[in-house]
Amino acid sequence: MSMFCETAVQYCRDNQERFLDELKDLVRIPSVSTDPAAKPEMYRAAEWVADMMKKMGMANTTIYPTSGHPVVYAENLKAGPGKPTVLIYGHYDVQPAEPLELWQSPPFEPTVRGDNLYGRGASDMKGQVLSAMKAVEALQNKDCLPVNIKFIIEGEEEIGSPNLAAFIEEHKALLACSYAVNPDTGMIGAEIPTITYGLRGLAYFEIRLTGPDHDLHSGLFGGVVHNPAQVLSELIAGMHDSEGRVTLPGFYDSVRPLTQDERQELARLPMDEAFYLHQTGAPDLHGEKGFTPAERVGTRPTLEVNGLLSGFTGEGSKTVLPSRAMAKISMRLVPDQDPQDVHQQLLSYMEKNAPSTIHWEVIPMAGGQASITDRNLPAVVALEKALEATWGKRPVYKREGGSVPVVAQMHKILGVDSVLTGFGLPDDNLHAPNEKMHIPTFYKGIEALVRFISILDEEN
Amino acid sequence: MSMFCETAVQYCRDNQERFLDELKDLVRIPSVSTDPAAKPEMYRAAEWVADMMKKMGMANTTIYPTSGHPVVYAENLKAGPGKPTVLIYGHYDVQPAEPLELWQSPPFEPTVRGDNLYGRGASDMKGQVLSAMKAVEALQNKDCLPVNIKFIIEGEEEIGSPNLAAFIEEHKALLACSYAVNPDTGMIGAEIPTITYGLRGLAYFEIRLTGPDHDLHSGLFGGVVHNPAQVLSELIAGMHDSEGRVTLPGFYDSVRPLTQDERQELARLPMDEAFYLHQTGAPDLHGEKGFTPAERVGTRPTLEVNGLLSGFTGEGSKTVLPSRAMAKISMRLVPDQDPQDVHQQLLSYMEKNAPSTIHWEVIPMAGGQASITDRNLPAVVALEKALEATWGKRPVYKREGGSVPVVAQMHKILGVDSVLTGFGLPDDNLHAPNEKMHIPTFYKGIEALVRFISILDEEN
Repeated sequence: MSMFCETAVQYCRDNQERFLDELKDLVRIPSVSTDPAAKPEMYRAAEWVADMMKKMGMANTTIYPTSGHPVVYAENLKAGPGKPTVLIYGHYDVQPAEPLELWQSPPFEPTVRGDNLYGRGASDMKGQVLSAMKAVEALQNKDCLPVNIKFIIEGEEEIGSPNLAAFIEEHKALLACSYAVNPDTGMIGAEIPTITYGLRGLAYFEIRLTGPDHDLHSGLFGGVVHNPAQVLSELIAGMHDSEGRVTLPGFYDSVRPLTQDERQELARLPMDEAFYLHQTGAPDLHGEKGFTPAERVGTRPTLEVNGLLSGFTGEGSKTVLPSRAMAKISMRLVPDQDPQDVHQQLLSYMEKNAPSTIHWEVIPMAGGQASITDRNLPAVVALEKALEATWGKRPVYKREGGSVPVVAQMHKILGVDSVLTGFGLPDDNLHAPNEKMHIPTFYKGIEALVRFISILDEEN
Repeated sequence: MSMFCETAVQYCRDNQERFLDELKDLVRIPSVSTDPAAKPEMYRAAEWVADMMKKMGMANTTIYPTSGHPVVYAENLKAGPGKPTVLIYGHYDVQPAEPLELWQSPPFEPTVRGDNLYGRGASDMKGQVLSAMKAVEALQNKDCLPVNIKFIIEGEEEIGSPNLAAFIEEHKALLACSYAVNPDTGMIGAEIPTITYGLRGLAYFEIRLTGPDHDLHSGLFGGVVHNPAQVLSELIAGMHDSEGRVTLPGFYDSVRPLTQDERQELARLPMDEAFYLHQTGAPDLHGEKGFTPAERVGTRPTLEVNGLLSGFTGEGSKTVLPSRAMAKISMRLVPDQDPQDVHQQLLSYMEKNAPSTIHWEVIPMAGGQASITDRNLPAVVALEKALEATWGKRPVYKREGGSVPVVAQMHKILGVDSVLTGFGLPDDNLHAPNEKMHIPTFYKGIEALVRFISILDEEN
């Protein structure tokens, strides 16, 4: 039987109010990594994290510049070389807050309504980063940290971590560890402890079309040139077939087939059609034929339009025949698809289907491979025990539809698996207006992480 | 042989510099009718026009409020009831100037570069309105105005003249006339005097789709809901068939067929594929199979996407699965299509093709019928003589692809034909960045209008 450090759990209970205030402070910093104008705020967020690490008593706290946004590193190696070393990953950057008019309270003025703290990044993932930091703080304070801890908190996750692989490569010795812990995933419901063992990869592109070399009057020229907004629509329409399958040539060639065992396991998840209808508010569901919703999100690759822009989009009517049209398009990938291959598949599709009436270019914006973690790792078993002790029920296992490219990078560069956890909820409005963190789950998550880390040196 | 009033022509030559300065003053007023914030500027433009009418010596100059932007009226009825009355139409509103970053000089700071005056509205149609006013000024000044003149200058042409029909209806007696003159069309080239005898109509709509009731994380939900940007692309793609024909049910049912005679006449226009490739800078032309470019623009209906917007369109990558998608779509109509019928056809198309996975609405934004003017009208013959005397060659006749709904309205309400003229050039960048007026053609146009009006009481 495991011996959790319950004095550290009590420390967390005694300090809940301060932990929430600290989360509010961090959410107040508008660290939107995709916005070039937010560069000073990015540094301010990195400094906030570093200051907190120092205050907690971590050693060697350093803000490492990169060619993008800085990485914060901190460590506590007091357990000594005979004990496991756990590398805890997080990111302090957030998604853009737009569309601002749909927020009920300003995105960077954290606001408590009911059981929730509203604010951009409250859940993804400032709340999760702080949960892990506060768990380590509690274990240090009560002298029951049985393992070595290293933190790596980056600032570019929401833009695809373009500089992280190079950073890890350059700091292999510094980051050497037994395994990584990544609290960037979530739970299926506030009362359903969840362990994510798979993540989808990502390949993100911007497609730009140019037809006429300037905007034209749609009356004087409508009928003689191919409207790039129409061409773009035709190209996007052709990217799916009538079965909901992606038509890029070779897109499914390397997709690892779903086993019957895994299908049965996923069928036990409480994520049926009704669940997704409720979560999305969509009038009807849609997707690849032959797969359940949970299978489609977790184990099948998808292609989504993330943005469309062409011509006049203001109030009123402007009879323009636009010169240009742009789409942001991204694919969620599953093992064993490769983002580079998908880039080539998109280029092949465009070469085959784009008409001679327009010029086109495809700009790769971000990419990362999918991953699967072995469910029998001792650390995964420890997590299962900690979650069960905290929620009073055995966790479910799921494959997540989102992407955390760093998981694949750490496997490739450091040779370690990542244990995935996290305490966001499906209705946290990640990447959307009115993002929020469920406060009782935030507190429970810290306790669960305390219990998890406190038994990491046991033979699970 | 006609007797043009050459003293008035000389007056115009002597005052060219002042006329250009006056045009600059008018272009400086950002009278963007579609922008709710520009309301004060709209009134300022109407006042500028009214002040100029008074300065020219026009009588009964009045700014009439409407439920939108005001209408300016002015008259000179000194020729008396035995003489024809000519109603000159114009509009003082302009298209929005966006995208601003593509302008070489600010759109509302008129700037001369080479032979051109750059600025929003310089050609469409502040330059044309002022040409007509200055021609009347010259004829009044030299006492050779043989007909009664009425001006009606509205402020809502660029948004489809929503209040003009009601205004004309309410002021039938005030506006009673022998025929209308509408200088809102253009020339094929600076040395090709052109008479436009047909105009296309317009039906303009905004299509709004909603899928999920909030923006979703494309990883957590990609695969279970129908992306509204994808649905919109599919709907737009389906609006044309592989022959470039519009697929709205019944769209071509009331289209007046092109006669062999008219095809031969249009074939004489110097508007071949090379012309349109040069004018548009498009890599290749495109359009309805079986028709020449000039036929497609002048005599065939078209459907264009004027704007597309969905999801994240800023810099960088945001992995959002958007809740909403919007398209602005407009059809250019030919005789005898009706904008109301086209609205119904679009609704039928949406009802038939929109999937159950999204909610949709179609908002009508603007509309107007197509028109054709009889080429044998005495006023058309007078215009031909005036253009020939000014340019030294016989004008060509063409059907224009643009829309001037007031022409159909005046025919219906006042029972009069409109003589169409105007001195814009195909490379004036109408509705686009870097709109300009060719200054030598502006001056020639004023002279041509002087000659035209000066023979309007002769038996042509």
